[in-house]
Amino acid sequence: MKFLTDEKLLIVGAAGMIGSNMAQTAIMMGLTPNITLYDPYGPALEGVAEELFHCGFEGVNITFTTDAKEAFTGAKYIVSSGGAARKAGMTREDLLKGNAQIAEEFGKNVKAYCPDVKFVVVIFNPADITGLVTLIYSGIAPDRVATLAALDSTRLRSELAKYFHISPDKVVNSRTYGGHGEQMAVFASTTTVDGKPLTEIIGTEALPAEDWEKMKVDVIQGGKHIIDLRGRSSFQSPAYLSIEMIAAAMGGKPFRWPAGTYINTPQFGHIMMAMETTIDATGIHTVDVKGTPAEMAELEKSYEHLCAMRDEVIDLGIMPPVADWSKFNSHLS
Amino acid sequence: MKFLTDEKLLIVGAAGMIGSNMAQTAIMMGLTPNITLYDPYGPALEGVAEELFHCGFEGVNITFTTDAKEAFTGAKYIVSSGGAARKAGMTREDLLKGNAQIAEEFGKNVKAYCPDVKFVVVIFNPADITGLVTLIYSGIAPDRVATLAALDSTRLRSELAKYFHISPDKVVNSRTYGGHGEQMAVFASTTTVDGKPLTEIIGTEALPAEDWEKMKVDVIQGGKHIIDLRGRSSFQSPAYLSIEMIAAAMGGKPFRWPAGTYINTPQFGHIMMAMETTIDATGIHTVDVKGTPAEMAELEKSYEHLCAMRDEVIDLGIMPPVADWSKFNSHLS
Repeated sequence: MKFLTDEKLLIVGAAGMIGSNMAQTAIMMGLTPNITLYDPYGPALEGVAEELFHCGFEGVNITFTTDAKEAFTGAKYIVSSGGAARKAGMTREDLLKGNAQIAEEFGKNVKAYCPDVKFVVVIFNPADITGLVTLIYSGIAPDRVATLAALDSTRLRSELAKYFHISPDKVVNSRTYGGHGEQMAVFASTTTVDGKPLTEIIGTEALPAEDWEKMKVDVIQGGKHIIDLRGRSSFQSPAYLSIEMIAAAMGGKPFRWPAGTYINTPQFGHIMMAMETTIDATGIHTVDVKGTPAEMAELEKSYEHLCAMRDEVIDLGIMPPVADWSKFNSHLS
Repeated sequence: MKFLTDEKLLIVGAAGMIGSNMAQTAIMMGLTPNITLYDPYGPALEGVAEELFHCGFEGVNITFTTDAKEAFTGAKYIVSSGGAARKAGMTREDLLKGNAQIAEEFGKNVKAYCPDVKFVVVIFNPADITGLVTLIYSGIAPDRVATLAALDSTRLRSELAKYFHISPDKVVNSRTYGGHGEQMAVFASTTTVDGKPLTEIIGTEALPAEDWEKMKVDVIQGGKHIIDLRGRSSFQSPAYLSIEMIAAAMGGKPFRWPAGTYINTPQFGHIMMAMETTIDATGIHTVDVKGTPAEMAELEKSYEHLCAMRDEVIDLGIMPPVADWSKFNSHLS
């Protein structure tokens, strides 16, 4: 079997549904023969490791541990789903406090045991906040941390494909930006449907404006819809997409979707949110987002929502005030 | 993306944990761009389909339906996990009656809607029985039906690797045959451990006889162990291995493990059980099992246990008497 790298991949939260799927996906995608599973909950962690052993994979060294030092030491790539899962009826924001604290501990583990990590993907919600907390406490460069944000764009792709009864492959460059939450900015101007710009379709008989507004709500509530249908939070799609992000960071196939990234520009300051990005062996890099004035206003609104959430976490005492970030992470100023 | 075939793969029981993992695995392994998910339970089925749509896969046509006719029509490859799951405390045999009835319906759907199916893998327990029931009612040739039996051999590989603190790759040709149940025959003579025949190690200081006996019990109870650790039945390993079987039947990489297959020889009559097999585009074919006299006696005992289970299902009226099988399937005599 050919691998993208032989460096250590650490999967944090590996005992859970997302983490265990990430492990299987990483092995099947041939990321690295060197995979460590970490979770504070030992029995289920061992159960996941056993499942992977029972797959009979060849050429892969799978280890597991409940010890943070052992897990993080030497890790060059990390993907973390190690938060609490969203339960039916909860908003992403309900998870804010608990998961922000978990992110703090996660960041501190990176700083203590693997400060030379090459790429970290954070996917537990609200990922815009947990990613930011991780970045601050880890001390690593912002281009080494990304959050999973692609799901909203793939959901838009899926909703458009279902609406028009076409293959999802005919929906090109569907995009949402900003928060991965209820105030995300769903763009239309980036997308073509069967070769035709989506903006030219919205408001016509083919896609009346009210149907488009409903679709945007469906995209935003895509995660809730999975819970309603399946009785559990989505786990296959976040696991799969986050491993695609890691693969890109290892120098594999380019990642095709937006990702959450740290932004500090005159327009958007001191925030982590979904932007147009590239992920490759040099890290994550932002590409300018272009939209209609209405879309850019939506993005601005989503940004302001994120700032309010960030400030709430600061007020909770979990995240230091922006002015103090550089004391924890010299890359942030 | 390159696929092994463009023919229709049907996943039965796709709403469940195993089925949904099989779908993701099949897509990731590049089996076919033509995948249909079937399950009588619509909401969770739709939830699984949504998850797969949200992965953003390219070049794959994923459809889902609760209608058997629509699902089975045109299917050339089928893998079914569509039974009830084993709960904590249940033996595989507890599931016997309910799952045998599900297998009957499954076989009848094959006969009615896709009698020219090329390969069917049955994995719901007790698979030796559900596979046999499927074979009888489907009317298809025995070399077109297999059951998942590899898990016991991969578990033996894993237990040996853990015991000797070596890579599982250094355990070669670990094998169990006969039933996929509590009376399976765990072989030693087929296996080498780090190049050394396992039979030469058993009974030495390196692996005392009592440790080997304990290990055999651990292998047999490998599924129960997962339930104890993880709080749920194993689903990743059965899903992954069954998709490897389908891949082999599509002409992909040869399958490296035993599989459950129909046997009717002077030694073993009218039964489905794990044997040494090959799976390729021509179907599943049996290779002679060679073992020590003690191992062959174990296999004989396992066979007799399976015959008793088969006769129990016949007595329950779910499986026709052996003499009548040819009325349902002209390939069986």
